[in-house]
Amino acid sequence: MTIAPPDARAADDAALDDHRRDYESLAERLDRRGLRADDVVDAVRRFEVAVPSWALGTGGTRFGRFPGPGEPRTLDEKLEDAAVVHRLTGATPRVSLHLPWDDPRDPDALKAHAAQLGLGFDAVNSNTFQDQQGQRLSYKLGSFSHPDAAVRRQAVDHNLHVVEVGRALGAEAITIWLADGSNYPGQMSLRRSFDRVLDCLREVYAALPAGWRLFTEHKPYEPAFYATVVQDWGSSLLLAQSLGDRAQCLVDLGHHLPNTNIEMVVARLLGAGKLGGFHFNDSKYGDDDLTAGSIKPYALFLVFHELVLAERDRLPSFRPAYMIDQSHNLKDPVEDLLQTVDQLQLACAKAWLVDHDALAAHQESGDVLMAERTLKDAFETDARPLVAEARRRAGAALDPVRAFRTSGYRATKSAERVGGIVEARGL
Amino acid sequence: MTIAPPDARAADDAALDDHRRDYESLAERLDRRGLRADDVVDAVRRFEVAVPSWALGTGGTRFGRFPGPGEPRTLDEKLEDAAVVHRLTGATPRVSLHLPWDDPRDPDALKAHAAQLGLGFDAVNSNTFQDQQGQRLSYKLGSFSHPDAAVRRQAVDHNLHVVEVGRALGAEAITIWLADGSNYPGQMSLRRSFDRVLDCLREVYAALPAGWRLFTEHKPYEPAFYATVVQDWGSSLLLAQSLGDRAQCLVDLGHHLPNTNIEMVVARLLGAGKLGGFHFNDSKYGDDDLTAGSIKPYALFLVFHELVLAERDRLPSFRPAYMIDQSHNLKDPVEDLLQTVDQLQLACAKAWLVDHDALAAHQESGDVLMAERTLKDAFETDARPLVAEARRRAGAALDPVRAFRTSGYRATKSAERVGGIVEARGL
Amino acid sequence: MTIAPPDARAADDAALDDHRRDYESLAERLDRRGLRADDVVDAVRRFEVAVPSWALGTGGTRFGRFPGPGEPRTLDEKLEDAAVVHRLTGATPRVSLHLPWDDPRDPDALKAHAAQLGLGFDAVNSNTFQDQQGQRLSYKLGSFSHPDAAVRRQAVDHNLHVVEVGRALGAEAITIWLADGSNYPGQMSLRRSFDRVLDCLREVYAALPAGWRLFTEHKPYEPAFYATVVQDWGSSLLLAQSLGDRAQCLVDLGHHLPNTNIEMVVARLLGAGKLGGFHFNDSKYGDDDLTAGSIKPYALFLVFHELVLAERDRLPSFRPAYMIDQSHNLKDPVEDLLQTVDQLQLACAKAWLVDHDALAAHQESGDVLMAERTLKDAFETDARPLVAEARRRAGAALDPVRAFRTSGYRATKSAERVGGIVEARGL
Amino acid sequence: MTIAPPDARAADDAALDDHRRDYESLAERLDRRGLRADDVVDAVRRFEVAVPSWALGTGGTRFGRFPGPGEPRTLDEKLEDAAVVHRLTGATPRVSLHLPWDDPRDPDALKAHAAQLGLGFDAVNSNTFQDQQGQRLSYKLGSFSHPDAAVRRQAVDHNLHVVEVGRALGAEAITIWLADGSNYPGQMSLRRSFDRVLDCLREVYAALPAGWRLFTEHKPYEPAFYATVVQDWGSSLLLAQSLGDRAQCLVDLGHHLPNTNIEMVVARLLGAGKLGGFHFNDSKYGDDDLTAGSIKPYALFLVFHELVLAERDRLPSFRPAYMIDQSHNLKDPVEDLLQTVDQLQLACAKAWLVDHDALAAHQESGDVLMAERTLKDAFETDARPLVAEARRRAGAALDPVRAFRTSGYRATKSAERVGGIVEARGL
Repeated sequence: MTIAPPDARAADDAALDDHRRDYESLAERLDRRGLRADDVVDAVRRFEVAVPSWALGTGGTRFGRFPGPGEPRTLDEKLEDAAVVHRLTGATPRVSLHLPWDDPRDPDALKAHAAQLGLGFDAVNSNTFQDQQGQRLSYKLGSFSHPDAAVRRQAVDHNLHVVEVGRALGAEAITIWLADGSNYPGQMSLRRSFDRVLDCLREVYAALPAGWRLFTEHKPYEPAFYATVVQDWGSSLLLAQSLGDRAQCLVDLGHHLPNTNIEMVVARLLGAGKLGGFHFNDSKYGDDDLTAGSIKPYALFLVFHELVLAERDRLPSFRPAYMIDQSHNLKDPVEDLLQTVDQLQLACAKAWLVDHDALAAHQESGDVLMAERTLKDAFETDARPLVAEARRRAGAALDPVRAFRTSGYRATKSAERVGGIVEARGL
Repeated sequence: MTIAPPDARAADDAALDDHRRDYESLAERLDRRGLRADDVVDAVRRFEVAVPSWALGTGGTRFGRFPGPGEPRTLDEKLEDAAVVHRLTGATPRVSLHLPWDDPRDPDALKAHAAQLGLGFDAVNSNTFQDQQGQRLSYKLGSFSHPDAAVRRQAVDHNLHVVEVGRALGAEAITIWLADGSNYPGQMSLRRSFDRVLDCLREVYAALPAGWRLFTEHKPYEPAFYATVVQDWGSSLLLAQSLGDRAQCLVDLGHHLPNTNIEMVVARLLGAGKLGGFHFNDSKYGDDDLTAGSIKPYALFLVFHELVLAERDRLPSFRPAYMIDQSHNLKDPVEDLLQTVDQLQLACAKAWLVDHDALAAHQESGDVLMAERTLKDAFETDARPLVAEARRRAGAALDPVRAFRTSGYRATKSAERVGGIVEARGL
Repeated sequence: MTIAPPDARAADDAALDDHRRDYESLAERLDRRGLRADDVVDAVRRFEVAVPSWALGTGGTRFGRFPGPGEPRTLDEKLEDAAVVHRLTGATPRVSLHLPWDDPRDPDALKAHAAQLGLGFDAVNSNTFQDQQGQRLSYKLGSFSHPDAAVRRQAVDHNLHVVEVGRALGAEAITIWLADGSNYPGQMSLRRSFDRVLDCLREVYAALPAGWRLFTEHKPYEPAFYATVVQDWGSSLLLAQSLGDRAQCLVDLGHHLPNTNIEMVVARLLGAGKLGGFHFNDSKYGDDDLTAGSIKPYALFLVFHELVLAERDRLPSFRPAYMIDQSHNLKDPVEDLLQTVDQLQLACAKAWLVDHDALAAHQESGDVLMAERTLKDAFETDARPLVAEARRRAGAALDPVRAFRTSGYRATKSAERVGGIVEARGL
Repeated sequence: MTIAPPDARAADDAALDDHRRDYESLAERLDRRGLRADDVVDAVRRFEVAVPSWALGTGGTRFGRFPGPGEPRTLDEKLEDAAVVHRLTGATPRVSLHLPWDDPRDPDALKAHAAQLGLGFDAVNSNTFQDQQGQRLSYKLGSFSHPDAAVRRQAVDHNLHVVEVGRALGAEAITIWLADGSNYPGQMSLRRSFDRVLDCLREVYAALPAGWRLFTEHKPYEPAFYATVVQDWGSSLLLAQSLGDRAQCLVDLGHHLPNTNIEMVVARLLGAGKLGGFHFNDSKYGDDDLTAGSIKPYALFLVFHELVLAERDRLPSFRPAYMIDQSHNLKDPVEDLLQTVDQLQLACAKAWLVDHDALAAHQESGDVLMAERTLKDAFETDARPLVAEARRRAGAALDPVRAFRTSGYRATKSAERVGGIVEARGL
């Protein structure tokens, strides 16, 4: 491992005095508002988010892909990079695998290797939206929704395999995003395709190991451009309701139609006891898979506000699985992940800065302006000292990107990792 | 009544020969495709849609309203106009009242008057999105979702009154569209506001007369511009599920986010046994409330295709309540309704022109192009002779707009109806 | 005048020590980044924005309007409220009139009255989207684009009158937003309607007093729901190009299609020398006219970033006219304006916190992450002490909303202003 | 060539009698409306559209690609397929090349080969949105807008090469779609990037052979997900204005934000003398590149309506270059093209069925309903006999898809074309 904690800290040393001053000044300011900085720091430290194996290489669009030097060539190298992200942020102790992209030959060995790096495994992801070399039947016209039972069988078997691998790795959930859909009116029966999907999901659900959950993930379009079978949270909810208590819905922040109020979707799923997890990213147009918080940071804060409320209200079914799901097209993948975790920690910190009693009182009395301002007071606060402090206490870096750049990690790896090919893909 | 059937027919006489030739030519052409024109004509004749009382006057936008001469000044005059629409189309035997806009002082007398005109009553609509003169508490910050229990009480009582009036008129359903929501983040609790709405709905549901249904109607925004409590079909579904079997969801074609695949929403609600009814209109941007079929006629056809499939499949819960819900800003309201019914009949006819066996076969074999083309074959057909024939057989007009213009009805009414004021509003 | 500066300051006194500490702590922090807090405070003090006369009363939607107590009943009372906004923010020295809503009987007297209150007049606005009582010809089917030359004549004459009034009041520009358009395909000729608009604009342009500018304002839809004549910035640009140097385009932040990158529109108009001014507000769905910065504060910052760049680059044609254009439906109109000005000042301050040299260097070297982070560094900074300090130095309030509430102004006015009616409308 | 005209005709023979009957019945019906069927048939025969070389293989999305058997492996094979499309539709006499995807080694030989197949060449397309093997500098961060002059040089040189190849092939225009843009705020200077693009375009423009035109093509997003340099028609217009008379704008039907009124964009560019050409396709969500007319056939008709009006009004600069630009992901590429041409011919035929005098009269008199109905009268007409007749008279197939399937062409080619690889890409 190129980055040893001392290196990370070395980059921080010069900044430490300034950090302390900023933190104390902020703590005093918060104290005036009746908030304890330490409480927020603790809340940030509780926040954990999984890193997906595929996000460690450069993504792309249908128009092209521009990979950079030093990208990981193997699953082991991906874990190595993931460990760097965790070391510098202190917030990503688990990796989320995507099969067959990262199907481990020897799950036990992989698990042991990960443990050595301080990593575990989060929800596993199946993939029936691409044909793999040597695959018997094509998913061109669908998988779980395919009119041909043999194709559905193949897709279910793949998912059962994914569960099996996940079990061996110590994961406790499977996330199923289906690209199934149609490009043209008439191409598929809108109702029957949904029934078929439910039937296949039942089979996977029945095979879940004890303690596991199944997450259904919706998306309005792409790659299907007329109709997608699991197109919105309502459809996802119907599936999760039909499957049972261990089925919940996963919300990807980029899988919504223009102008959707996503925090409302979150609130509805929370209210129905069906919010299972998140795929974090940001977007301006569609499923753009940009760095979380890069386009609409206030909207991200509002989503975290709902999550904090759910935690405060101790909603019984609330046990969210957080994952990053982005396509790093232009930035260095590790840097992009570091920046992303920082943005999520910031949104989390700000959501804990909300004065909930004041907010409730303003809502009750109908003071629209002051209720809004209560949220804005939290959002306007410069919470960077709080998340830096949370990382510092976790032994991570005050400024993860700076630490990463200072370490020279990528240059070292570029020299080591030659001739690698990361398969093209995108979520 | 100014328009007597002979007048309507008089306008048609000159066109009758041409109509017969067109109809027979089309029937022969359909026969080649294995379709009987008479069957489609019968299907069109079965299609009925309610006319809302408020659509008989000119609507408007927040920027202004441009009423025309001869608009109905009273509920009786609205019924008179509604009867004209029914007489000329043969498809609108029921009127849908909106209270308090059209709260009848004497429901029994109104019912009798309507019966004389050949009209009955469809679903009644409550209104808690405006304050009425003399109203005790304001709905400025909500009705069913209001933090103040007294406001919720007032709103529930209004709905109970609407049910009572509807019962007296022979209606069998209440449609509840709630404008409740918020303009700013923080203004309302997203989860608690929904719980309150559900509580209020339970009370109204409990008071439903035997045989009645309750329709919940969603809308993503307007007049609330940040968050609407019943913002999408998923929320509407959760409400209907919680209430019980007699609660179903109503789909307004204009109440969707940009790019929504509405036929998919229809299919999901059908699959869940929760599609209760429709508000027909068309739109390009938001809830524009334009003439049905005027912007996206193919999308309207695709919605009807799902409805026809539901009828063919005899879905047990399928008993849809159809209503027009438009804002006639520029066209003569009666003419706009006549054109609307014609467009709906056209979409209905075309949906019945689909070769369902061929479609199913192409879907099964994965022939995307031919499956799509099967729908397009139906849509491309000039179905106007079929709907004209359906109207002719019902004793209505071949061309309702022409008949209306020929009749001179509006001019007559403009002379009679002087000094009228129709209250400004819009759905 | 109920609010005298001492009162405003009285509310601030208790907070002044904290403010000083916060400001100094921030100044020190900025100093580390090579920025002088005083420079930013100066930049905020230079920022001025006009208050529109119509924003001093409660707005509404087509579904209703919920006015509050104490709203101004006359233009004089509106000026009185506008003066309060200026006194508490120090940033709104001019009022923008909308005719005929606020057509002054005696412009000279009005000008004198305003001067006494410390106010002047900004761009005047014409209105041909509503029919006024006693108006000869209707704008139902358009004004400048109307097929009937007599209607166009009437609309031009109205605009000439508006210019005349504006001249008398000391204004130096006219803003023309045309609602002209159509609800249905075929209703108007898309090309001819545009030519007619240009012809009418030429006549108004020719009548501009020396030193005046004419702003064309586009909007994609509402109240026209199929096609709007001046529907986008490209159309607005064509008009301004055809008219001449004194014609420029005005950008309303809510007049864009979903997902529009507005800062890009700003950059294009700046590059073409055609950016004339702004209407500030915020929105989630359409032209929602919410408080500026309430939904997408980062997007507002990015717009200000372009404006600051234009100022730094000394673009020759850059002389922007800033105005607020909102519809205060739920909040107290004065409070909403105070909050709005605060949000604009915040966005302005943050835009001046950008390290422009670093940004340019990162752009040049292709360091995507650091370029983005340079903007985020500015945005994440809690700039509230800077804008409070700017207001303090201007003799205004540290916290305008708090000062307004403490003053009891609205309660006093509610007692005074009885029986008022503000005409319903909305922009 | 596997498909000889007799084969195509053989498939038609059985249908010919029915076609004649349908055509005559329609002609009689049109005659009643004062329209001559022959005139419309002639207009359809005048309509020509280019087939892009890349559309002859299966496209894909970033999530995968599902190629089919028998796809062309070489440019010669692509021409062979293009010739089939032309033979069966009679409407696609030219091919549009995309370089470097289809960079011919020997343009003269290619031109001769094409001529033998009855084909010529339309506008050539450059590509600087992907890196090609062996390319010296990367377009990862842009081409014409790149901060590094060497990258811009490379991109300009590529375009000059494309012009050179096009000249050799007999093409008369170059279409430049730039993917240049940024994924994150701050990544690029919004104004400077535009200036750089204009500078590069000037160089290409200066090198245009006599008689050539240059088309700038805009797109709001994808692959850039924050800001695209040529993001809308306004930007495209500014470029074309700055370049000169031989620069015009090209409209791709899928390159617009949600809810855009595209026919309005067409009308504006026509009015400004800057409409150069079209890329036809259809979409529901973004740049979905579906079969033209498959999602919004009425919108396609409305676009053609503007084109027909421009032709009738003899706009001096109106000389549109039509091209198909789709991504055939699920359908057989040749079949998809045949269906597309059919849909375009249908839209063209219907646009010529509009009663222009009646339309103008209704617009003039403000008869909104009848004006709209005039368009709907044309659109509702089943125009299939007209386009079939146009094809018949051109020696093409009554039903091109049926003829293609009957011919067994794809099966034959699947046996011949083994081991082919079509490079992944998408427009």
